[in-house]
Amino acid sequence: MKFETPPPHGGRLVYNVVEDRDKAAKMVEGLPCVDIKPTLDPAGTPIRNVYREIMSIAYGFFSPLDRFMTRNEVERVLEERRLLDGWIFPYPIVLDLSDEDLKAAGVKEGDGLCLRLKGRPFAVVERIEEIYRVEDRKTFADRVFGTPERNKEVVRKRFDEKHPGWLIYRQLKPNFVAGRVYVVNPPKFRQPYDRFWYPPQKSREYIRQKGWTIVVAHQTRNVPHRGHEALMKHALFVAGATRPGDAVLVNAIIGAKRPGDYLDEAILEAHEALNKFGYFHPDRHVVTMTLWDMRYGNPLESLLHAVIRQNLGCTHHMFGRDHAAVGDYYDPYATQILWTKGLPSYGLNEPPHETDKGFKILPVNLGEFAYSPKADEITYYGSDLDKPLVGDKPEKFSGSFIRGIIMEGLRPPPIIMRPEVFDVIVKWWKVYGYPFVTDRYLKLKEEQLEVEL
Amino acid sequence: MKFETPPPHGGRLVYNVVEDRDKAAKMVEGLPCVDIKPTLDPAGTPIRNVYREIMSIAYGFFSPLDRFMTRNEVERVLEERRLLDGWIFPYPIVLDLSDEDLKAAGVKEGDGLCLRLKGRPFAVVERIEEIYRVEDRKTFADRVFGTPERNKEVVRKRFDEKHPGWLIYRQLKPNFVAGRVYVVNPPKFRQPYDRFWYPPQKSREYIRQKGWTIVVAHQTRNVPHRGHEALMKHALFVAGATRPGDAVLVNAIIGAKRPGDYLDEAILEAHEALNKFGYFHPDRHVVTMTLWDMRYGNPLESLLHAVIRQNLGCTHHMFGRDHAAVGDYYDPYATQILWTKGLPSYGLNEPPHETDKGFKILPVNLGEFAYSPKADEITYYGSDLDKPLVGDKPEKFSGSFIRGIIMEGLRPPPIIMRPEVFDVIVKWWKVYGYPFVTDRYLKLKEEQLEVEL
Repeated sequence: MKFETPPPHGGRLVYNVVEDRDKAAKMVEGLPCVDIKPTLDPAGTPIRNVYREIMSIAYGFFSPLDRFMTRNEVERVLEERRLLDGWIFPYPIVLDLSDEDLKAAGVKEGDGLCLRLKGRPFAVVERIEEIYRVEDRKTFADRVFGTPERNKEVVRKRFDEKHPGWLIYRQLKPNFVAGRVYVVNPPKFRQPYDRFWYPPQKSREYIRQKGWTIVVAHQTRNVPHRGHEALMKHALFVAGATRPGDAVLVNAIIGAKRPGDYLDEAILEAHEALNKFGYFHPDRHVVTMTLWDMRYGNPLESLLHAVIRQNLGCTHHMFGRDHAAVGDYYDPYATQILWTKGLPSYGLNEPPHETDKGFKILPVNLGEFAYSPKADEITYYGSDLDKPLVGDKPEKFSGSFIRGIIMEGLRPPPIIMRPEVFDVIVKWWKVYGYPFVTDRYLKLKEEQLEVEL
Repeated sequence: MKFETPPPHGGRLVYNVVEDRDKAAKMVEGLPCVDIKPTLDPAGTPIRNVYREIMSIAYGFFSPLDRFMTRNEVERVLEERRLLDGWIFPYPIVLDLSDEDLKAAGVKEGDGLCLRLKGRPFAVVERIEEIYRVEDRKTFADRVFGTPERNKEVVRKRFDEKHPGWLIYRQLKPNFVAGRVYVVNPPKFRQPYDRFWYPPQKSREYIRQKGWTIVVAHQTRNVPHRGHEALMKHALFVAGATRPGDAVLVNAIIGAKRPGDYLDEAILEAHEALNKFGYFHPDRHVVTMTLWDMRYGNPLESLLHAVIRQNLGCTHHMFGRDHAAVGDYYDPYATQILWTKGLPSYGLNEPPHETDKGFKILPVNLGEFAYSPKADEITYYGSDLDKPLVGDKPEKFSGSFIRGIIMEGLRPPPIIMRPEVFDVIVKWWKVYGYPFVTDRYLKLKEEQLEVEL
């Protein structure tokens, strides 16, 4: 079996970034403007900023999607998880405005619209294709994620406001503005984000320069423990057919996350520590990021991950237990069910890499890795779908147990976490006063963002 | 990519075993007989017993080969490494008789011939197809293995009597008797060999019962150290395309080996200890054997291994550094060169799994595993053909270093060898008075064989 770097999803990379200052100025000139405002939870904590979606569209992470969706496209996404042109895409991507903002802008279909970020022009909707209202965002949010009745294969529990992704959709403003969007003021990333910014063109060029072909994407919103490290190392071997794969591309999701998650800066630098301190060779491992406020949609999120990582140039994507999940809304192996059988209740009758206008990126479906006391190694303990490798009982890596150790100020033993990884946690803990995401961190993050304009 | 248990090499499993006692008696009746005698080295030590080849032919390990080869077939094997019907096969398989034995038997082409083992009828050449002489067995042996002049891709040094495989061919008797061979007196295996005897039919049935599809063969003539164990574990992951493979099938080569090799009984029970004591789950690992006096032919031996393990029902075969090699006659990665590019100088212009009448079994090409002090784990250090996984310097597993520790009577540390594996070495050391193959062991082995008749 021969592998090659896959084409972008949908066949072409979007690059809606206007670098020419004069051209950008002309695009903005005379347009009505609105300020980008964060989506807030009922207590006023920021849980999403659409600037991240604009960046991901404009730099091609979401290719072939190059715009905010029309009502028709949203409907098709909700019914079949496909764009109007047929390519698989899991979530409605919408620009939502409040009645006040829409009225103040005074725009109608056919007009252009300038979007200000932190008071400065940042992006432009070139020509508004449609302005439409969605009154019932609770039902909308249910339709995004599924319901136990409609999606029996994988939904175990009705979604509610404790689910951060569902909450984002429920908290949207009611007016959706559709149209192609451009970044007209390419932002500069703050440290440490700057060195992890590999949009698709750059990522593909990096892969080419390194001489990699078989590249396995690792989704993360975590500081890596030894189980994650073993998952990455073993997935690399699965990805090769007659020899090991070439490299792991870690792609961290950067944006608002739920309280208790690790800090974005720590996630990036902790993964980087794995190749900086020798646990991965830098010729086998690179850390990158995507701007996105996680929706925690397990199988649906895995489709977005496939879009992004195929665009980044990866041949494979690793999927483990509870992929991009929170709580017990979904079956823990919902993502693997999707990638082995499809999910007909979401309109996906086949696995998404075996369907027309689906993915070229291939799944690597793995169960859990855990510590085997007998073998004294991190080993494969499998899943409902797969068998253990060794004969004894596992000592599983519990994220909440590890968080508990950390909150006591204790250094986890190296069999649980590499010391240099813990050092990174401590570094950012000192900066923010707490090792995990809090409402305060979310507010600071919204004030500063990852970029300067 | 969907996998299934491959068909036998050549499309059909040979089963030349006559179980019906009356039928067997009739086949033997009236036939001239010769006693099977071991091939001896110049000092009189047994280095081969053709009974092992007869067993491997009759029970289907060498399918589609069902006979001792004619001169034409030997020529084709030496020039193209293919049987007369075109299927890849690496070595001449011949029944060699001394002038005295041939004369005493008084057989000619068209006759039948009975072969006695330990004084009892064991096998029958049904109808002798050809009797031919090979006078110059030194040149014959050179042609079997190759020469630095003719096989520049991989042969680094002229073969000589220090190479045990070359020596076997040079020490053959001059008269080769060709014809289809049957075991007429199916032998009973001694302990511990009996429980590792999985001829192709039984092996395929075992794989079916276990529900395995992706089965990776591991060639061994060694007691496993941790590097071997890591090789097996990682090869299992390579073998799966979108999930880990199902199981490792260890197939030990049992027969005369060179002094310094591990004892056959220890090899089998040590590998078994890995699944017996929890380092592998028994649903992921099985230990089997093939009777064959190793030829140490590196790339050529890998072809025989592919024949055998495809017949056993494996989908994949792992190939590492110095596959079935001794000394520095071949390039350490000769086998992997064969399985990635082919070896035109041996008549193999393509990799043997990508050629007509080649193999369905697929290679898993892996470099070395070694201990990483930094990562404190057994890790992939790659090869000339592949890159390391981690960043620090390896501590390699040296077979001779480990032998040295053992000969001092020391228990190797568990990071080098599992304690239960060492226990097996000690068990058989006590039986034979020495932990490795000696001339005395080879003589005892020839006296007893692995079977009782």
